[in-house]
Amino acid sequence: MKHHIAFIGLGRMGQAMATNLLLAGHTLTVYNRSPDKAEAMRARGASVADTPADAVREAEVVFTMVTDDEVLRELTTGDDGILAGLPPDAVHASCSTVAPATNQELAMMHREHGSWLVAAPVFGRPIVAANGQLWVCLAGPNKAKSRLLPLLPSFSQGNFDLGEDPGAANVLKLCGNFMLGAAIEAMAEAFTLAEKSGLDRMVVFEFLTTALFNSPAYRTYGRMVAEEDYQPAGTAPSLLEKDLKLTLAEARAHQVPMPVANIILDHLTATVTRHSSADEDWTSFARRISESAGLIR
Amino acid sequence: MKHHIAFIGLGRMGQAMATNLLLAGHTLTVYNRSPDKAEAMRARGASVADTPADAVREAEVVFTMVTDDEVLRELTTGDDGILAGLPPDAVHASCSTVAPATNQELAMMHREHGSWLVAAPVFGRPIVAANGQLWVCLAGPNKAKSRLLPLLPSFSQGNFDLGEDPGAANVLKLCGNFMLGAAIEAMAEAFTLAEKSGLDRMVVFEFLTTALFNSPAYRTYGRMVAEEDYQPAGTAPSLLEKDLKLTLAEARAHQVPMPVANIILDHLTATVTRHSSADEDWTSFARRISESAGLIR
Amino acid sequence: MKHHIAFIGLGRMGQAMATNLLLAGHTLTVYNRSPDKAEAMRARGASVADTPADAVREAEVVFTMVTDDEVLRELTTGDDGILAGLPPDAVHASCSTVAPATNQELAMMHREHGSWLVAAPVFGRPIVAANGQLWVCLAGPNKAKSRLLPLLPSFSQGNFDLGEDPGAANVLKLCGNFMLGAAIEAMAEAFTLAEKSGLDRMVVFEFLTTALFNSPAYRTYGRMVAEEDYQPAGTAPSLLEKDLKLTLAEARAHQVPMPVANIILDHLTATVTRHSSADEDWTSFARRISESAGLIR
Amino acid sequence: MKHHIAFIGLGRMGQAMATNLLLAGHTLTVYNRSPDKAEAMRARGASVADTPADAVREAEVVFTMVTDDEVLRELTTGDDGILAGLPPDAVHASCSTVAPATNQELAMMHREHGSWLVAAPVFGRPIVAANGQLWVCLAGPNKAKSRLLPLLPSFSQGNFDLGEDPGAANVLKLCGNFMLGAAIEAMAEAFTLAEKSGLDRMVVFEFLTTALFNSPAYRTYGRMVAEEDYQPAGTAPSLLEKDLKLTLAEARAHQVPMPVANIILDHLTATVTRHSSADEDWTSFARRISESAGLIR
Repeated sequence: MKHHIAFIGLGRMGQAMATNLLLAGHTLTVYNRSPDKAEAMRARGASVADTPADAVREAEVVFTMVTDDEVLRELTTGDDGILAGLPPDAVHASCSTVAPATNQELAMMHREHGSWLVAAPVFGRPIVAANGQLWVCLAGPNKAKSRLLPLLPSFSQGNFDLGEDPGAANVLKLCGNFMLGAAIEAMAEAFTLAEKSGLDRMVVFEFLTTALFNSPAYRTYGRMVAEEDYQPAGTAPSLLEKDLKLTLAEARAHQVPMPVANIILDHLTATVTRHSSADEDWTSFARRISESAGLIR
Repeated sequence: MKHHIAFIGLGRMGQAMATNLLLAGHTLTVYNRSPDKAEAMRARGASVADTPADAVREAEVVFTMVTDDEVLRELTTGDDGILAGLPPDAVHASCSTVAPATNQELAMMHREHGSWLVAAPVFGRPIVAANGQLWVCLAGPNKAKSRLLPLLPSFSQGNFDLGEDPGAANVLKLCGNFMLGAAIEAMAEAFTLAEKSGLDRMVVFEFLTTALFNSPAYRTYGRMVAEEDYQPAGTAPSLLEKDLKLTLAEARAHQVPMPVANIILDHLTATVTRHSSADEDWTSFARRISESAGLIR
Repeated sequence: MKHHIAFIGLGRMGQAMATNLLLAGHTLTVYNRSPDKAEAMRARGASVADTPADAVREAEVVFTMVTDDEVLRELTTGDDGILAGLPPDAVHASCSTVAPATNQELAMMHREHGSWLVAAPVFGRPIVAANGQLWVCLAGPNKAKSRLLPLLPSFSQGNFDLGEDPGAANVLKLCGNFMLGAAIEAMAEAFTLAEKSGLDRMVVFEFLTTALFNSPAYRTYGRMVAEEDYQPAGTAPSLLEKDLKLTLAEARAHQVPMPVANIILDHLTATVTRHSSADEDWTSFARRISESAGLIR
Repeated sequence: MKHHIAFIGLGRMGQAMATNLLLAGHTLTVYNRSPDKAEAMRARGASVADTPADAVREAEVVFTMVTDDEVLRELTTGDDGILAGLPPDAVHASCSTVAPATNQELAMMHREHGSWLVAAPVFGRPIVAANGQLWVCLAGPNKAKSRLLPLLPSFSQGNFDLGEDPGAANVLKLCGNFMLGAAIEAMAEAFTLAEKSGLDRMVVFEFLTTALFNSPAYRTYGRMVAEEDYQPAGTAPSLLEKDLKLTLAEARAHQVPMPVANIILDHLTATVTRHSSADEDWTSFARRISESAGLIR
């Protein structure tokens, strides 16, 4: 069955997801702050709206995939925002990586408005989204989730239901991003030790991702760390710096020591402050270990 | 082709490997410091020697799988040690996790003696060894490695050749153990944050090891961390404490900062000093995060 | 010259400061949420008000010394709060350890109201306040600071002027608390290493605070750490946990890695979550090192 | 009373101490591996020997102040070393920062030789040694210490007796150096947070070393950190890197987690590997925080 869908936020991830929704035959209206990316979607068959409110006026479901909490809040509650246009009973699938409390708060506003918010953060790089192989965490009212489910296969290979509290999906998303960061940091430390001991980084990478960690995450990020080549940039370091800040803010609020998360955030911060690294993948924080070991000046 | 093989060191790992060598039809002579474990191997068809020297007198290959550097050194160079009995041209497959320098030093003594040392540390828990699914890192003289290769399939699913410097295989083994520790630490932090945020640890475990880290290492150790049940004890915390000390000694010697390795070692040390944890798996260092978060008293 | 002064917040620090203002001959009106502490001040000659608004109706200067940002905000801006009663041109000396932004925000509200806020956080334990030996950091409008200066000698030995931005004094206060925590953590690590090496903790304490760190902070906190006796409780661990959270929130906002601050906060959090430690001084986080080293179960 | 004294090791510290012993009227024979520094002492009235053995042939006391364990061991036990020339009953005052086990081992060899070793590490920078204001930790046989005591005032303001085990003095020295490092690291973090918050580093330095940490160590090192000017170089970063490695080796051997020591060592290692920093003081590791915060490229 085909649906009227709105998609707001057309970064690398959003574009790939929206394109797959189009390819699945849905009627799509898009909105993006910088209009050029929206035009690219128009060429593929989407309608382009001038405001979030206009984008969602006939939507059964609106997806948002934006940079951070502030942008999501503004797009949802601003004068021309989603809540200003969304029909009653429609579903807002909030896919961005934001604080659990942000989705909880917006969910409350949706409820007052007569619509629904489902937190639906996704795992996977843009290329994975393009291949329709993301993973989705879902949390929100069961009825709203059930209306979202038929749309997900166009861009994802599976989903997990975290219950009715929208915050839960974001906690899980933050945990996952942190764990990816921990794997990258561990590889940076191990490969650097190996290199300075006279081994070849790529041999170590091959062995470890064959014998111990044979999963796409380790192979994708591990190759970048082994080759110290952080192109193409799936996600910018500044975005993951934001994510790790959110992770540690949750950890502080819940009184959970996370020493490895602290290390990753510090390395991301140094990466953001020291380099014009926006054109490198966030994995490039691994370079901090090479630097500290004197391999890079 | 069947060979005369000696096996020294019959802990959980050694027994499983030696039993598989027996099952493959080789003639096996064993030695173990505490004789009861050797008797169990006699029942399976092995000869039992009173000293390492006696165990290796007719061996083409001798495997050692012992606790630490000091024991390996003593078994190899002591009065009744391997070098006192080993025939010329025989191969010593040194499988224990020891410092790279230890195997390098023993390799030199073998060369003077007219025999060969191949560093052959293995990855996998005892149950994996019993199933013949270990991974082996090999480093040493090519000629000696080629004589070892036909014996490995009895207990391993594959091997990696790290070249002729025996230290290289141990560096890789130390890197691998560190990376397993980093994965465990990351799960401990993530699952504890999830739990204190109201999520179920097992749900988080299921999602992350399905969507991001679908490898046996994450699933085996992750289940322990999620359930906080550290039985059965594959390897004792004190052994991994030793391994991380070796890792960090290499890191110091080569001037490589390894902040995550420091955290893991500190947690292992606290685990060893505070608990009679010998009957728990080393993974139990994950409990330090639950404690610091106030979930365990 | 004698002044009409209000004092709000009569914890251990507030009481000592207010008492010294009384002893200096000023006319004092006090307010405290739990009235028993206010009654103790009445016995010493203060008037007791039922609300913050009532307390400040005739005040030239009002001091606040309360638990955290939320309480300060409520006391200042609530229905019966300071701003509801404070005469024009009066000065609010905000002495609590709060986020720089909190004082900046309240300063703006004072300006609209025609009054002034001076951030005036203090350094020193309650006994030091009682002895009139605190140090005060001052930041706010110069005119307002100059009206505060004559009152300070009653409880302090000196003050530092940080300029006109009220946030600056709080940044410095957070830096100072962090540095005290770092000194405590370093002593915990050093004394524990010394103890496990066979030395007497007190001998080490005596030497180090004589030869290297002969300042009251090291001697006061160091004696507690050396003797592992954390009585009397100058400040509760939960208060410093809050302070370190504020410090790290500033660090995150300004992109400053503070690895030692992370360690201290994690130790404070573990102290707060694991113990009913409200009756011990915050210095007791030093015990985490003794625990991790297996000296305390 | 005047004595025959030998002094071996004429780096910045050794020269200052030896010169003060000369000024006190003792008969001094010196030895240094690079002879030019010995010639400078000859100009001040010392005799210059060609080997350590020759330097000590008539010595009642021989002081050593050298780079590391290996050099000390070689100078003491080598063919032309101290033990080859030292008269029976003479005292070897071992002032270098070395592992406790090194002095314990050399002490045993002295005992067999009929002479005595007293571990006598000192605290203070070269300028402090020149001013005769060092602090000395003493550990060794009481009789030998009592013969050393009259010589110390020429270069020190006081000493502490740690008992008869020579290792104890070195443990304390390692604790002290670590604590200095912790103070420097804490100032680096605090001053950088202050700077990025808009405060002046020097103002923060002035306040904190006046109000909280009014001791020479904080003022001397703190000024360097505040001004980010690490000249003159009292001690090279590589020497303190060695010291922190010794500290952490002791910590590992005694199972003591020292998270702050790990941070300091990692910063020292990065300082040594990345910069030609031999001409800067070890305090320059503080720069790592400015770098990570993006203030220095």
